[in-house]
Amino acid sequence: MPVLLFISEIEPPGPWKRALEAQMPGLEVRIWPDLGEAGEVDYVLCWKPDVSVVGTLTRLKAIFSLGAGVDHLAGVSDQLPGVPVVRMVEPALTEGMTEYVVYQVLGFHRRMPEYAAQRARREWRELPQTRPQERGVGIMGLGVLGSEAARALVYFGFDVSGWSRTPKRLEGVTSFAGDDTLEAFLSRCEILVCMLPLTPATEGIINRETLRRLPPGAAVINVGRGGHLVEDDLLEALDSGHISGAALDVFEREPLPPDHPFWAHPRIIVTPHIASLTNPDTGARVVADNIARCEAGKALDNEIDFSRGY
Amino acid sequence: MPVLLFISEIEPPGPWKRALEAQMPGLEVRIWPDLGEAGEVDYVLCWKPDVSVVGTLTRLKAIFSLGAGVDHLAGVSDQLPGVPVVRMVEPALTEGMTEYVVYQVLGFHRRMPEYAAQRARREWRELPQTRPQERGVGIMGLGVLGSEAARALVYFGFDVSGWSRTPKRLEGVTSFAGDDTLEAFLSRCEILVCMLPLTPATEGIINRETLRRLPPGAAVINVGRGGHLVEDDLLEALDSGHISGAALDVFEREPLPPDHPFWAHPRIIVTPHIASLTNPDTGARVVADNIARCEAGKALDNEIDFSRGY
Repeated sequence: MPVLLFISEIEPPGPWKRALEAQMPGLEVRIWPDLGEAGEVDYVLCWKPDVSVVGTLTRLKAIFSLGAGVDHLAGVSDQLPGVPVVRMVEPALTEGMTEYVVYQVLGFHRRMPEYAAQRARREWRELPQTRPQERGVGIMGLGVLGSEAARALVYFGFDVSGWSRTPKRLEGVTSFAGDDTLEAFLSRCEILVCMLPLTPATEGIINRETLRRLPPGAAVINVGRGGHLVEDDLLEALDSGHISGAALDVFEREPLPPDHPFWAHPRIIVTPHIASLTNPDTGARVVADNIARCEAGKALDNEIDFSRGY
Repeated sequence: MPVLLFISEIEPPGPWKRALEAQMPGLEVRIWPDLGEAGEVDYVLCWKPDVSVVGTLTRLKAIFSLGAGVDHLAGVSDQLPGVPVVRMVEPALTEGMTEYVVYQVLGFHRRMPEYAAQRARREWRELPQTRPQERGVGIMGLGVLGSEAARALVYFGFDVSGWSRTPKRLEGVTSFAGDDTLEAFLSRCEILVCMLPLTPATEGIINRETLRRLPPGAAVINVGRGGHLVEDDLLEALDSGHISGAALDVFEREPLPPDHPFWAHPRIIVTPHIASLTNPDTGARVVADNIARCEAGKALDNEIDFSRGY
């Protein structure tokens, strides 16, 4: 009977334990810090685990991330046991991210921040509207989440571009790959969406230089990681007027500190890292399937490659 | 050479004149009040025209509405000459409406008004999230605009219902038709979207009784006409907490008067009748095609039936 250890200081364990046991009746789910015998643990399901704990698990077969992003594990990969590490890919997480990205893109496209400002002044005024075919929207990062968001934006008729490490073929999406194409990609993005994994290569990628490459009046949506964005550079670009607005769900420090200038900035929409939430029911199904694969000696789905960082 | 008279006090005529003449080089476009010889006018393209003017056009062959809604003409149909009246159905109008409806539905679905309130308090807190499959969204009115919005909501996986005068078959949409089914329809709508034409049968359809039939905490989106909503009943339902929020683009009086309670209501999103705007370029193409049909003796597309009111 395999044993799974759940480790997270922010995610409530109860729904996961119930869902995993329902999906896989033979599985024993322990909740950190109730570790029991460390040598009995086969799997870890975690968010920002204490690596020294993981290091004591001598029988460990795989580590599952509770989130799509695995930077919380990649950053400490040299201290982890040499077992497969798996990112979370599950339908509710994907659909939630698509909802959030489409919502924010439509908001900037339809000038909703400007209408909200007019409303506060009780001003009734129609603003000129661009058609989606003439609206350049760019997605950095075309993994599972980025590809699905791109597909939804194509559904609405936007002029969608994508930028990724390796070339991708997605219907209706103009694909750019590699650092040499970044400038050309950015020049097409009236609305830029960051959906990259956080790696040494992508850290701070939204900065003074890259913001300057966006068309005047562009908007920025960050649902990747706080570390992708140089926060002071964004404030400067907003102050100069070159960037018209931003919707940010992730931050250098989370929770966003109460005195942070983003909270009250009139052209920044702040949400508390809720763009997409892993769903215990659908997530547990995916984890249980992967455990069954592992127990049957098969390769795991969605294993990450630390050499590329995701 | 056919003559078209453009009549509108709010829509700028220039782009329409240029687009129509580009589409149909043989067409002469006159802008009210520069009528010239009334007996030379073959077509009227209008928004809220002075019916006494239209009555003088002895050679008139058809009246085109600048908007999708034709209540501005249906209400005075007994004073109009007995010629075909045509609603505006053009791609930019449809796509804009879909964008607006999806934006507002996603906003309520993803609890964005609550996150905005938290942000104002600098409060970092994740709220429980419902999956789209468990979120009942209902569209009243499944015409060209309603059907396309329904299709987009189905794309996102919502539990979509539709209510219309006659039964409609739309993939993924539970169809309700006729007054007898209204209560059953409303009970499924956590988010209700009004996209009906305004007729004597639909006037005031969102009222104390119908709001009461919605599930507790439901949200209301009105992109139909201000006349569909009994404004005081909505305020009462918001105050009682039964309705959690509303997004309104149309109002009994437009522009919305500066002292109207909707402007500053914390749970009402007000936009100035911009959910969808007819695009002169794509709209002119549709009008020119219809004029060509008329000149060739063919039936017009999208002619309205005053017996049903739209």
